This record gives sequence, C-alpha cells and structure tokens, in this order.
Amino acid sequence: MAQLRIALAQINPTVGDLAGNADLILGAAERATREGAHLLAVPEMALTGYPIEDLALRPSFVRAARAAMDQLADDLEDRGLGDLVVVAGYLDGTPDDAPRIGRPAGSPIDAAALVHRGETLIRSAKHHLPNYGVFDEYRYFVPGDVLPVVRIGGIDVAVAICEDLWQDSGPVAAAADARAGLLLSINASPYELNKNDARYELLARRASEAGCAIAYVNQVGGQDELVFDGDSLVVAPDGAVLARAGQFTDELFVVDLDLPVAQVPAERTSEKATNGMEIRRIVVSAEPVAAFEPRPRVLTPRLDDHEEIYTALVTGLRDYVRKNGFSSVVLGLSGGIDSALVAAIAVDALGTEHVYGVSMPSRYSTDHSRDDAADLAERTGLHYETVPIAPMVEAYLKTTADAGTALTGLAEENLQARVRGTTLMALSNQRGHLVLATGNKSELAVGYSTLYGDAVGAYAPIKDVPKTLVWALARWRNEAATRRGQTAPIPVNSIEKEPSAELRPDQRDTDSLPDYAVLDEILDLYVEGDHGREEIEARGFDPELVQRVLTLTDTAEYKRRQYPPGTKISPKAFGRDRRLPITSRWRETA
Amino acid sequence: MAQLRIALAQINPTVGDLAGNADLILGAAERATREGAHLLAVPEMALTGYPIEDLALRPSFVRAARAAMDQLADDLEDRGLGDLVVVAGYLDGTPDDAPRIGRPAGSPIDAAALVHRGETLIRSAKHHLPNYGVFDEYRYFVPGDVLPVVRIGGIDVAVAICEDLWQDSGPVAAAADARAGLLLSINASPYELNKNDARYELLARRASEAGCAIAYVNQVGGQDELVFDGDSLVVAPDGAVLARAGQFTDELFVVDLDLPVAQVPAERTSEKATNGMEIRRIVVSAEPVAAFEPRPRVLTPRLDDHEEIYTALVTGLRDYVRKNGFSSVVLGLSGGIDSALVAAIAVDALGTEHVYGVSMPSRYSTDHSRDDAADLAERTGLHYETVPIAPMVEAYLKTTADAGTALTGLAEENLQARVRGTTLMALSNQRGHLVLATGNKSELAVGYSTLYGDAVGAYAPIKDVPKTLVWALARWRNEAATRRGQTAPIPVNSIEKEPSAELRPDQRDTDSLPDYAVLDEILDLYVEGDHGREEIEARGFDPELVQRVLTLTDTAEYKRRQYPPGTKISPKAFGRDRRLPITSRWRETA
Repeated sequence: MAQLRIALAQINPTVGDLAGNADLILGAAERATREGAHLLAVPEMALTGYPIEDLALRPSFVRAARAAMDQLADDLEDRGLGDLVVVAGYLDGTPDDAPRIGRPAGSPIDAAALVHRGETLIRSAKHHLPNYGVFDEYRYFVPGDVLPVVRIGGIDVAVAICEDLWQDSGPVAAAADARAGLLLSINASPYELNKNDARYELLARRASEAGCAIAYVNQVGGQDELVFDGDSLVVAPDGAVLARAGQFTDELFVVDLDLPVAQVPAERTSEKATNGMEIRRIVVSAEPVAAFEPRPRVLTPRLDDHEEIYTALVTGLRDYVRKNGFSSVVLGLSGGIDSALVAAIAVDALGTEHVYGVSMPSRYSTDHSRDDAADLAERTGLHYETVPIAPMVEAYLKTTADAGTALTGLAEENLQARVRGTTLMALSNQRGHLVLATGNKSELAVGYSTLYGDAVGAYAPIKDVPKTLVWALARWRNEAATRRGQTAPIPVNSIEKEPSAELRPDQRDTDSLPDYAVLDEILDLYVEGDHGREEIEARGFDPELVQRVLTLTDTAEYKRRQYPPGTKISPKAFGRDRRLPITSRWRETA
Repeated sequence: MAQLRIALAQINPTVGDLAGNADLILGAAERATREGAHLLAVPEMALTGYPIEDLALRPSFVRAARAAMDQLADDLEDRGLGDLVVVAGYLDGTPDDAPRIGRPAGSPIDAAALVHRGETLIRSAKHHLPNYGVFDEYRYFVPGDVLPVVRIGGIDVAVAICEDLWQDSGPVAAAADARAGLLLSINASPYELNKNDARYELLARRASEAGCAIAYVNQVGGQDELVFDGDSLVVAPDGAVLARAGQFTDELFVVDLDLPVAQVPAERTSEKATNGMEIRRIVVSAEPVAAFEPRPRVLTPRLDDHEEIYTALVTGLRDYVRKNGFSSVVLGLSGGIDSALVAAIAVDALGTEHVYGVSMPSRYSTDHSRDDAADLAERTGLHYETVPIAPMVEAYLKTTADAGTALTGLAEENLQARVRGTTLMALSNQRGHLVLATGNKSELAVGYSTLYGDAVGAYAPIKDVPKTLVWALARWRNEAATRRGQTAPIPVNSIEKEPSAELRPDQRDTDSLPDYAVLDEILDLYVEGDHGREEIEARGFDPELVQRVLTLTDTAEYKRRQYPPGTKISPKAFGRDRRLPITSRWRETA
C-alpha cells in the first residue's frame, strides 16, 4: 500500500465563462497545493460549464475551449503549481474528422485532460454518452474508447467521466483489467430527490467491479434548469464510504488514502481491455510518496429531506440571478403561501435588500390578503410597495367594450393576472430587477395559471414543487428560524388559510381543483411516473377524479409549452421539462 | 421483369390521434384498391403522427398504438381491402426488456408493419436513429436490425424507414445483399429549404448502392414546429426519376413499375447480411401479376423557391390552428410589412372569414400606419376592428408613478407592446381566436422584440423568415394575385415604406439595427451556419458591424428561450429552435 492525498474540487462554474472557470480551477489548484495534495480532480466540463447544449456545435467555441485548456496548463506551471497532477473536464473536438450527416460538426468530445508541469499528458473522451432525462449527449459528442491510467506516487489512477460509471462495462471493466489502484470519476451530475442514496449504491457496486476505490467529484450550483449538489465521495472496494463532502457546498475536499501499489511494469504504455477499450498508461511518479500523517476522515452528515430541497431551491435561484447578471428580483405578493415561500427563498438566496415585493390588489382582493403580504414584508424586511390594478383593469374593460367586445368570465380573470404581469415587467424594465414567477408545480400541471399573467417571470423558483410540499417547506423554514432564534419569515395565516386566486368574489381553488393532497398523489403518478389511467385507478383512486385530473393535465400540456423555461414541469424534481408535442390528440381518458 | 402497381400515401396525420390517423390509412387503402394497386405504402409513424416526443416514453401510449395497429389490420380485412399489401409506420415496443438506465422504458421502436389479409406478416424497427437537428431518436427508440423482404407478384420488396437511407451501410447494404427488386422507404421527413434537391441526390446514390429502384413516401402537413412537404418519388437504380408527387399535397400517388423478378429460392426465410443485419423473407405472391397497361408516369413540376416557402408557411399555420382545435385567428395590424404578410398567409390558410385583424394605435402611431392597416383589411376582406391603447397605457403610467416609479425610455416602449399583447389575449379568451405573433426572424434574432408584448401568440408564422425574405414573399404574393387577376392583398406602401416600430416619435428600425440586407447575411452565417466572428469577418464584412450584430444576437439568446415555441429561431428554416444555454457568458465578440 502507498499513501496519496487527493483534492476534489466542488466548484461552481458558469457555462461559457472560460476565463472565470479557469480562475476557479487555478484557485482550487493553489489551495490543493497549499494543502499538500498530490492530485486535484475538477468536475466534468468544469472549464466550459455544463450543460453547454448547442454551443458544442459551434466550432469557434470548441477552439476557444481547447485554447483555454492549453492556457490553463501554462498558467498552472507559471504560478508554481506544476507539481500537482490536475485532472480537469473540458470540451475538445476532432475537427479533422470528415463531416458526416448525423455526427456533430467537428466531432466534439466531453473530454478530460491530465495536466502536469505545464504539459497535457493525455486527453481522453467520455465513453458512455447519456441521452435520457436531462441529457442529450448523442446530439453533442462522439464517444471515446481510451481509458487513461496515470501512475502517481506508485499508484495507478484510472480516469472516467460521469456516465461512464452509470452504464455496465466500458471504463469500469477496463479499470479492473488495468488493475488500477484508484478510479477517479469526474462528474456534472444534477440533483434529484434522493439521488445521493442512488449515487452511493452505484459507487459501491462499481468499486467492487473495478476492484479498487472510487473517488467521485461533482460540481455544485445552479445552471439554468438544473441544480448540482456536490456530494463528492470516496468509496472503498468493499463499499465502505471513506469520505463524503457536503451537499451544495463550494469546497475543496481533501482526502488521504492508502492505496495498493501498482504491479504492472512501468514500461507498459498501452494494452487492450477485454471490452476492446484501449488502456493508455503514463507514469508521473513511480515511487510512493514519503509517508505522512493522514488527516482524520470527513463524513459530512446528509441534510434532511426538507432542508435538502429548500437548499436546492435557494441554490438554483441564487445562481440563476447572479449568472444572468442581475442583482435583485421583484415578485408579486398576494398574501398566499406560494408567493410567501418564494419571497423567503429569494431573501435567503440574495439577501433581504435585493428583494422587492409588490402588492397588486384588485377589487376582489380581501383585506386579509393585503395584511398577510404586509406581514411577510415586515417579517423578512424586503422592499414592499403597493400598485393597485383597478385603474388599468377598468381601462381595458371600458376600451374593449367601446370597441364592441365586453370581457367577462375567464377573459376578465386572466386580464387581472396579465395586468399584474405587465406591471412587474414595467418595474423590471425601469429598475433592472429580474421577475420571479410564483406558480407551484400542481397548479402549472393542471393549467390553473394564466399565460403572460402569473406565469410571467424569468425564473420560477417553485415550478418543481407540488402544493403539499410548498406547505411543508414553509413550515420547515419557519421552524428552522425558530430553532435559530430568528423571526419566522412566513405568516402563519398564509400557511393555514384556504388557497384562493382571488380573481372573482369568494373564489376558492377547490372550486376548480380536487383537494391538493389527492391531486398531488395523482399528478406524481401521471407526470413523474408516466403511469396510465388504468394503473392509477388500480391504486384505488376514484375513477371520476382520475378522469378529471388527467383531462386537466392533458389539456394544460400545450399551454405549458408556451411558458418561460423557469416555469416548466420536470420529469424529475429539478430536471428539465418533459418534451411533449404541443399538438396532440392523445388523451389517457378518451 | 414483372409489373407492380404501387400507391404512395402522402397523408397528413395528427400526433396522438390514433383513430383519426387509422381512418386516413383506411381511406388511402380504399382508394388504392379502387385504383388496382398491389402495394400501399404509408409514411413513417403515420398511425401515431410524428414526432411524438415524450409520448414514446408513456407505456400506455405504446400499448394503445400497438392495439390500434392490430385493429387497423382487422379493419382492412373487414372492409374487403385484405388483398392489398399495406406497409405502415407505427409505434411499437418490447415491454419485456429489462429496465436499464439510459434505455427508454418499454424499449419503444419506430416500427413498420406489413399487413395482408388481416394479418401482420412482419413487424420491423428503424435501424438508424437520427439524433441531430430536429431529431432526438436516441432518447425515444431502440434500434432494429432486421430487414424485411416481402415477395409480391414475384418481386422482392425490402422495407426501410427514413434515416435508414441517410446513413451508410445498414438497410441499404442489406437490401443489396438480399438482391431486392425494390426498396420501399417510408418517411416523416421535415421540409427545409432546397431539401427536395438533397433528397433526390441521396436517393439516386442509394438506389445505385442497393442495386434496385427506391420508392420513397413522405407525409405532408404541419405538426407543431415542423412542416412536412410530401415530395414522394421513385428513382431507378441508374438515378433516373421514374415518378414524383406534389409538394405539400395530400394525395394518393399511384405508380406503375417494371421490376426484376426475384431469383432467390422461395423457401429461404432468413439470412445474415454482410453487415450483420438479419434479412427476413416472406412470400405473399410468388408469381408475377397479370400483365396490364401501365399508366403514364407523373413527374409533378417543382414549385419555385418563393412559392415553395410561402406554401410551407400556409401549410404550417393551417395545420397548427386546425390540429389545436381552433377555427379562427386574431392578430395586430400595425400597417407594417410583417403583420401584412402574416395576414395574407392567414387568409390563404384559413379563409378570410376566419381572420380578425386589430388596429391598436398609440399616440406615436402615424396616420399612414392606420391607413395601410385599413387598406390591407379592405384588400383581403378580413374582419377589422380598432382598439386604441392610450387609455390603458395612461393608467399604467399614472398608477406606477403614483406608487413612486415613473416609466420612461425602454420601459415605456415595452409597456405599449405589452398592452397590445394583453388586448389580443383578452379578445382571444373572450371570443376563442388563436393569437398570431407577427415577428420575423431578423428582429427576433437580435432581440428587437418585446417579451410578453409583440412576442405574444400561440404561433408565429414568419418566425423563420428573415426580413429581406419577408419583403420578397410579399412581392411574390402580390404578383401571384395579379397573375390570377385577383386583388393584390398587401398594400404597396407597406412593402415600400421604411420599417418602424412606432414606439416613440419618429422611430426607425435603422436607429437600432444595421440595414436588413447586411443584417440578414451576417445572421445567416452566424445563426444558421454556426460560423464564428473571424470566419464572418473573413468574408469581407466590416468588423465593427460584425461585432455589433453578434453582440445583439448573443445578448438576445437568453430572452429568446422565454418565448412561446411558435416564435423560436430555428437551426434550419422550418426546423426546431437551436438549443442554447439560457445562462451563458460565452461571447463571440469578447
């Protein structure tokens, strides 16, 4: 056995910010060197950010990413960090490939570079390309078939990229053939509910298959519709967790390991794995490093479910605002629970001085709604103002009536929501705030929302949160405040009162929708689980109720596609939207 | 040689409408039987519509599609159409496959069924799955590796599906090994500019490789963001076009062919092709059909470029409205060229009585704008009404000022556009029209458009049309009317006057944008061609102008993603939107 100190960089890159991301990597390398690490691992595509989507198809971007990687190698050496072995994800390409229909132009690869003393010793490409859920990598990349194995301090370290661990065979099997002492996995793995459990189980299985420990590093932070949760960890061949970093924490995670010394002759540079992959070997240092006192192992405790979800929501919002160049947000405060929870998340993400709440009462707004909105403003300290919408609504009603069309019913209800959306956009354009939409997943799923009205906003923080979870998170946030001796941000009345859109007198959500507890259960089966009507009925739900919810959802689908991206419904919590045809006659309940 | 009469069904299915699509296929089979055809080919996925996107991942939909195919086989027999051999595209699955990460649940296949006398003789699956441009088929399907070869009238007919022809090897090579007498290709191939030329060249090459004629059938009609152009054709092994159907025409295209008689023993049922595919053989009728007098061959003339594009726009709009259950549209008429062209397209697509134009003058609107809008209404006969926006704009300005925020500059300009959008949506909600957005591709690309304002609309007919082409199509449409002795729909003044948004006094597009002729050239290189700044400059454009256009486009990208799907910018004319990260710091011009 020999010792190795490895540093796993849980950093937060921004898509397209090559210079900024390089600085993050240089900062991690400086810190890792100070900490005495021998090897630094940086996440998948850290230099470009992830996911880059169609930027991968732009040859000028591929060239720029490749040049940035070469520059990074130079900069590491120039700053005296050349002794550290750095494994970093970036975008590369093979522009000499002949153009072919169906293969992306320039044959981009999701690459890893292994850098030492200013030289890129080896470049490799992801072998397994995921093309499901939030991933579209067959569109963007061509696969690689080389497993790099680098000897550092006498230990053979194999390198794999993200999905390479999630699929059978490929790099894991090749690492076993190569008799690697450590399999290093660099990742950009988005957060889902309970993904940390799945991740651990996968790693334990793969470590056993590879016959060596696995060190797994993942990025943190929000990027568009995705949130990355970090949760980097090291697992022994027997499945034991040797170390685990925090969730959603920007940190350099340093781990001391005892690993088997390489037995393969140092002269061997290449061999075929049984699955046909090429094992390509490089020696940085053949001798074990001098013995050192290992640090105690860190096993960061997991967040509980509500804290984990709330933290994901705060992370996603904070980074969306920051990475898009905004510093403040504006949202409508109705006095209801949805806008109250969004306001609490925004205050936690950005600081109370960067959050602007607008009460926009109509003739149908109740006194308690206005009081609850003002109470929330006072509890959180956010900026609070009131813009009544009656003058604008009256102007539309009168002008269209004069032109021959009286607005009634749903047209009048939607009008109120759209006047509010236009008012928020006007304040946004004048003062530079980013607008937040406050809709929850349950109401978006069944179409209980107004296009260009309450759906207005560049980002919808609780788009992925069903209504029952909205209440649970509000209660959790208040309890957390109380535990810390702080003011609970959300008025109890907003949590406990009956939900209403207040677009007509005495309106209640239950006029149009089933009880949210049942609605959320059915929606989970239908939207998340892709179960059909018969399967849902078989679970014991009232067939008429199932029919009603599925019909609402089916007819809402085409509308949903017209919403801004931040308001989309996801296949998984915090994933991207389902992709459904806008025009479809298919009805589960036909 | 032996004779065969084949019928190619250029039909217009709707996604998800299993019963309606089955009726279209039954109707084609009745007509083909009346016409004496021996073989009917129906497009790829005709029974489900194409593209079905995430519906493929819903097991209940896969089961329903499979059941609909079985029902169709029964119905063909019950209606006395069993003698006809029908090759039809549908969705099938292999639900017994074990679930696996990265493979779609239930392993859906893009399938072809070969039906005769009420029996499905063979089911096969598409071999090459496209995953570029508008296609995402790795997400949805698992590939097949069987080439069906059916002997009809003594001729061996091999069956391939769409992309199977666009990629090397696979079914084309297997058809050569099988010594097929005809390769039948069923397609759902979306329209692009000049695609008919590319299609012909491809078919000529593949016919030579397969060593037999190819009969190619494609669907017609609009589906969401795509338009299908038909253009079915038959090509001889030497590249000669034997027959060609119309573009965008719903028709049953009947072709009489002389084809080589099969030499392979009729007992052979299966063999391996050199590329590993399985050739699976079935005999429907081993003897040549009785000799008949062949009909003259039809070579439908191609449309000229402007007529082809205009017809695609009319087709896309007509089907989007109809397939979404609307019968009328409403749009704002500014007097400018964009709304005038959209109105002309709408009148051609839906009939003048289903088109509602609304003039919404502000204090900045000129008299000539109102006159030109009224002139357009008179020329086309569409419904015309006027709703002045000043009362609503004044109410917003006063109410927000009273609350402490005066709206000025861009905020005031955007407000006017949003009042117009809200007015159109109010009329839509009250009266049931679908709203059309009138933005063109040039202004959308550079962000010269207001989110929730003029971008409001379920469908944007000229979203894919650059401004210079807007003018050209308007001129073409007027000339076509004159040639037919009809009133030219578009006022000459709308074509010839200088473009202006009229959101402030004396505003001109050229205050903010370069001349459209140059702008469109640069946008084509940057957006469609994915060329970088240096490559564009190398073509001789002024570097400062390139910098300006690319910066406008880059900064507009994140806004564009928030628009309804009908307003998206496409990678190719009539394709789907480019997929770009919402948050990206990448700038060509940095």
